Amino acid sequence: MDNKALLKHSKRPIGVFDSGLGGLTVVRELTRTLPHEDIVYFGDLARLPYGAKSKKQIIEFSVNNTLFLLRQKVKAIIIACNSSASSASSYLRRLFPVPIVDVISATAEEAAELSRTGRIAVLGTKATIESGVYQAKIKQLFPRAHVITQSCPLFVPLVEEGWLLGKVTSGVAEHYLKSIKKAKVDVVVLGCTHYPLLKTVIKKAFSKKVALVESAPRTVADLKKILQDQGLLNVEGRGRLSIFVSDKSRNFIEIGSRFLGEPIRSVKIVKW
Amino acid sequence: MDNKALLKHSKRPIGVFDSGLGGLTVVRELTRTLPHEDIVYFGDLARLPYGAKSKKQIIEFSVNNTLFLLRQKVKAIIIACNSSASSASSYLRRLFPVPIVDVISATAEEAAELSRTGRIAVLGTKATIESGVYQAKIKQLFPRAHVITQSCPLFVPLVEEGWLLGKVTSGVAEHYLKSIKKAKVDVVVLGCTHYPLLKTVIKKAFSKKVALVESAPRTVADLKKILQDQGLLNVEGRGRLSIFVSDKSRNFIEIGSRFLGEPIRSVKIVKW
Repeated sequence: MDNKALLKHSKRPIGVFDSGLGGLTVVRELTRTLPHEDIVYFGDLARLPYGAKSKKQIIEFSVNNTLFLLRQKVKAIIIACNSSASSASSYLRRLFPVPIVDVISATAEEAAELSRTGRIAVLGTKATIESGVYQAKIKQLFPRAHVITQSCPLFVPLVEEGWLLGKVTSGVAEHYLKSIKKAKVDVVVLGCTHYPLLKTVIKKAFSKKVALVESAPRTVADLKKILQDQGLLNVEGRGRLSIFVSDKSRNFIEIGSRFLGEPIRSVKIVKW
Repeated sequence: MDNKALLKHSKRPIGVFDSGLGGLTVVRELTRTLPHEDIVYFGDLARLPYGAKSKKQIIEFSVNNTLFLLRQKVKAIIIACNSSASSASSYLRRLFPVPIVDVISATAEEAAELSRTGRIAVLGTKATIESGVYQAKIKQLFPRAHVITQSCPLFVPLVEEGWLLGKVTSGVAEHYLKSIKKAKVDVVVLGCTHYPLLKTVIKKAFSKKVALVESAPRTVADLKKILQDQGLLNVEGRGRLSIFVSDKSRNFIEIGSRFLGEPIRSVKIVKW
């Protein structure tokens, strides 16, 4: 490829998809770390949540989402949904010839590096936990690790309802984290893009010595490295963010702005 | 139509659809009240929940579900999903030439009859409450009625998680029902097929004088009357129940059995 073609290629946007709007926490990190990049985000609001659905179904939805992003001519894709990453990422990588980074690999790596005792807890949706992907990836990097998992199905609806603090949310966290507290872990993986918004409550349930690991920072760092290595990094201009969703669900502007950390200005509805 | 054709027609099954498995509370009532009827149930597990999605999207899903039931040659349809009934029932009735009964009309009627003071509360999903359908129907029947509404987005995930009692669930109920308690209502409509499973907790939040109205009994009574009037009632044999779902989601047998009130024996997965 000549220089001109390469340059053109590097100007293409980065694609990010999620079942809903939680993946905007990854977008927030992207705009901070890679301010020159255009970003195309797709949130599958019509079919969310993925977390309790079957692997087959999640793969089908994920393929649809990837095809949509490829039609937007993205140069790389971030799977910003843990349920999708755990069920579909290897399938998508086999199918599509574009760099695909997912929230799980990077997060597992960071957890393995951070832990001293090897006692690591992973919180996630049913799909993520039952897939065993976090467990396997951590064990690969840290063979002596003891990984304890807990699915927390009520965390996502609590965040969507905006109940980030308070007695009810603390009660739910206490319930889910009971057995993990006994296991004396030193690292807790927040294996769902919704969970960082519950950090205060989750942190309170543990002692101060526990490190919480979020997906966004390391995932974006990994993508940056890939783009650099392949000469695809955009180094000029101010990046634009385009948000697409498959349904205009209720309160989505409000919920989305909470994840993005700034007001969402415009959203386009996509129909397959 | 000659007698033979009529007879054949009355042998056809009753179709019931819901976004998920909550509609099995209606099926439970159907098998009690109309034990000779075959029933075909469809639960749209791939796309659930409907409660926070847009009206347009809910109509599209509801049309798909109705078409599936019509392909099973049903003689009548129950919309057992309040979100679907509130957003799509009039649309479906205009589109399809088959008796369609929905959970809202019957339940609103019962609430209007039961209330002495006219102070009626309606609990439901965001879609149901924002549609205003319960409010309008009750006002039609009881013009002086004062209808107070409350959407309770966490009730469905609590039921799906099986947290039917306990401190967390009571805390959520207390929060949602605070303003309704102050309004001194005498009737509370459980405007979602999941909510009857939280009856104990909801009842506890009110005084003993409050009547809780569930959808299933009156909805089934209404359907029975329509079938009788049209000569479509099946009066022989033991009815069979067939359950279809659009995804084999996690724990669905366990959750479904909770709604049906007996173990689910077999489920067929449908792909569009």
